[in-house]
Amino acid sequence: MKVAVFGANGQIGQHVVELLQQHPQHKAVALVRKEKQLAVLNKQGIDARLIDLSAQVDEISKALVGIDAVVFSAGSGGDTDGDMTLRIDLDGAVKAMEAAELAGAKRFIMVSALQAHNREFWHPDLVPYYAAKHYADRELLRSNLDYTIIRPGLLTNNASTGNIHANGQITEGEIPREDVAKVIVTAIDKPNTIGKAFDMVSGDTPIEQAIEAL
Amino acid sequence: MKVAVFGANGQIGQHVVELLQQHPQHKAVALVRKEKQLAVLNKQGIDARLIDLSAQVDEISKALVGIDAVVFSAGSGGDTDGDMTLRIDLDGAVKAMEAAELAGAKRFIMVSALQAHNREFWHPDLVPYYAAKHYADRELLRSNLDYTIIRPGLLTNNASTGNIHANGQITEGEIPREDVAKVIVTAIDKPNTIGKAFDMVSGDTPIEQAIEAL
Repeated sequence: MKVAVFGANGQIGQHVVELLQQHPQHKAVALVRKEKQLAVLNKQGIDARLIDLSAQVDEISKALVGIDAVVFSAGSGGDTDGDMTLRIDLDGAVKAMEAAELAGAKRFIMVSALQAHNREFWHPDLVPYYAAKHYADRELLRSNLDYTIIRPGLLTNNASTGNIHANGQITEGEIPREDVAKVIVTAIDKPNTIGKAFDMVSGDTPIEQAIEAL
Repeated sequence: MKVAVFGANGQIGQHVVELLQQHPQHKAVALVRKEKQLAVLNKQGIDARLIDLSAQVDEISKALVGIDAVVFSAGSGGDTDGDMTLRIDLDGAVKAMEAAELAGAKRFIMVSALQAHNREFWHPDLVPYYAAKHYADRELLRSNLDYTIIRPGLLTNNASTGNIHANGQITEGEIPREDVAKVIVTAIDKPNTIGKAFDMVSGDTPIEQAIEAL
């Protein structure tokens, strides 16, 4: 599959692009905001396209022509200001969904956050971030896309363990960004993950096995 | 009808409460965040209840027991920071909707913003504010509430003219906050406004007539 990655220059996005490039069946299309990022990626032999999430939906959809699957890992993390969170994590994400529908890219993988669906578990200081994730996810649930919503715990830059604990009631825990990327790339062509949303943290089950058991 | 007003201490909310108090068929229940505001309102003979929109939905719904209609005019305007916009204009508004459903208060009047439904018309500097309004409105459209979404133009503190231009394609213009309050109170018991969302600015048609023609 030809997989477009929003946030390809981000910490998870870079891992996703690398894994897609190594994958026998997939091909990455890195979506980036700056000419300079585009040039760097092209030099590495990576197919890259310029896109700004502040553009209108029809403009964004042009960058998705010929794409089979979309990964949305753009966004701010909990520590950016609320204005950017509203622009990118909420409105940017929903515009990406609408653009994907318009371009006929049915498969959509969203990187959300642990317990984004349950207000009771939101840390009081991080309510704005979780709210943006929550309402973007709600829009995706109601879209016509073949979605998977991945809700990872606290993101770290630790080395990949390749093992996760997914699904069920998980309310705390952390996970390396590299393992989140592995879950994304593993899930893309697993039909059992379509229409699913799940929490995950580091655990004892190999990623492939945990994903197939969802 | 017994009408609860979120944002009763705000600039539009104060007008709404005053108009409801003078109304032969309605009665205001002012929802405020601070004990001090509650005391001031009670002294004026106004039924007031304490509520914090950062509370959970079941807690908020307790303040809506016995309420027939809810007005949501809490919020920040375009000049507060994005974090508060996410907390109040988006998540607070949606929690108010869910609390209203839970409490059986079916009628819900939302104060939104001109063209909040059309991204093309959002001023680039105000995208975060419009995005919050946009996604709150989307949730209301999909709720089981008897909603009316009012999208006023630029709010002023000018004296009421009592005349508006409503509905149709309106992309600019202003309106006094007092007239927005009059529209809200006029719409509450007009069944033709249920399930409607409309833009409005100052105009040539008396409010009652403009609302009945929606």
